Amino acid sequence: MFRLKQSFTIMFSDCDPAKIMFYPRYFQWFDRASQQIFNEVGLPWNETWAQYDMGGFPLVDASASFKAPARMDETVQMETWIDEWRGRTFVVKHVVSRDGEILVEGQEIRVWAVHDASRPAGIRAAEIPEEIKAKFEV
Amino acid sequence: MFRLKQSFTIMFSDCDPAKIMFYPRYFQWFDRASQQIFNEVGLPWNETWAQYDMGGFPLVDASASFKAPARMDETVQMETWIDEWRGRTFVVKHVVSRDGEILVEGQEIRVWAVHDASRPAGIRAAEIPEEIKAKFEV
Amino acid sequence: MFRLKQSFTIMFSDCDPAKIMFYPRYFQWFDRASQQIFNEVGLPWNETWAQYDMGGFPLVDASASFKAPARMDETVQMETWIDEWRGRTFVVKHVVSRDGEILVEGQEIRVWAVHDASRPAGIRAAEIPEEIKAKFEV
Amino acid sequence: MFRLKQSFTIMFSDCDPAKIMFYPRYFQWFDRASQQIFNEVGLPWNETWAQYDMGGFPLVDASASFKAPARMDETVQMETWIDEWRGRTFVVKHVVSRDGEILVEGQEIRVWAVHDASRPAGIRAAEIPEEIKAKFEV
Repeated sequence: MFRLKQSFTIMFSDCDPAKIMFYPRYFQWFDRASQQIFNEVGLPWNETWAQYDMGGFPLVDASASFKAPARMDETVQMETWIDEWRGRTFVVKHVVSRDGEILVEGQEIRVWAVHDASRPAGIRAAEIPEEIKAKFEV
Repeated sequence: MFRLKQSFTIMFSDCDPAKIMFYPRYFQWFDRASQQIFNEVGLPWNETWAQYDMGGFPLVDASASFKAPARMDETVQMETWIDEWRGRTFVVKHVVSRDGEILVEGQEIRVWAVHDASRPAGIRAAEIPEEIKAKFEV
Repeated sequence: MFRLKQSFTIMFSDCDPAKIMFYPRYFQWFDRASQQIFNEVGLPWNETWAQYDMGGFPLVDASASFKAPARMDETVQMETWIDEWRGRTFVVKHVVSRDGEILVEGQEIRVWAVHDASRPAGIRAAEIPEEIKAKFEV
Repeated sequence: MFRLKQSFTIMFSDCDPAKIMFYPRYFQWFDRASQQIFNEVGLPWNETWAQYDMGGFPLVDASASFKAPARMDETVQMETWIDEWRGRTFVVKHVVSRDGEILVEGQEIRVWAVHDASRPAGIRAAEIPEEIKAKFEV
């Protein structure tokens, strides 16, 4: 499975008055990384959504477990990958670490949502096409 | 247990290009609400941290389950309360709903963290004082 | 001219590691307040944009002058109004104060932008209708 | 004068419901870039503030002029430099462009603020040391 590895320096603007990374910021990182893995395997969100008549990859669930704080000027690493395909949903894992020590373990469960004008939300979950899954096999 | 009930109008700035509330924003709401419940029972964070020589209420875990999206101009309600005291941690629940329909169920697990210069992080978890818990009994 | 007066408590999540309101947050407040004044006079953005075939109120210019910092737990007031109609643009002013002391003076210049498929951006500036201006006269 | 050149891909999370970069995001970029230029010349904020007994680089003024929008998946360039030293303040310029077309011109005026317990804000503006200015000469 394709894995995205990134490195970040914790900036002033990432931190809260306790001088550690403000926790909702991690979820912003997760959202970006979930977009980036699709970019990296040649499936930009906008193009993919247009091609499959989709309303995006809405979240069903998001969670994070915080082991240790990250502080300004520290460099941290983040690894992101699709951990599981579950029919109409998929699980994205994000692990933030600092020199091998895990700081945060995050997970997003996202839906493959296609347009359906007959539904109140205008979308419905659909089976994830095999050719999409194949793109992440490396 | 004290419960905070709030009402929000979803604004342009809350929404993403899919025109629904951007999911990390919910965690920003959760963080604010977790501060507000302490304010409401007479325990402002700054004063409480100073009084008990604390480094704050760092997160151990945060999660949200998304049932339905919220759109711009919709009015939603959020209810927040401490659901459980667990010795050195406590669980804050947040439920966002729209006219009785639950949109998001969120949970934060936070630590009662006191200063301890002998630890690498400068803090350690400590037992939550009884008089603090008592403040939330109503 | 209609004026919106709001009051805010500065929260942990508003503040940066210097323990004052993180300055880009003020621009988020400005954006929300610029939407709220339209809501308050009966011109919600979504409805107005649909009615006039618009692409929104994009910014031409935004600025803020910072006189004094706001700190966590302080209560501040913000006043917002349209200060000037300039044909195809309009000027929104925002003044944040604390007990009469001005902390921040902000200004946004926004365009009345209608759809125009012949333009690269898909929109063009148009004259602001008189009936819109009239709504803000109170 | 040292110039920082960066490149960004506009992400889903950068954009608002109008599907363009949400304008307050630019000010977040500016803040980060203003920190990065100090990092790049060997003056990390935390170390510099400790060395000179400072309360940071608070803003006096921030402004941006928006020429054209940036959309999701576009790659943009940003150039950042200190444009002027003004005794106790300095001017940071930020120019965002796309393939040579300027999208946004931004400016921050920041103070060299040292601790001064006799002042209400706990800080006062001081002359910027010559050795600091010299670091940016390249």
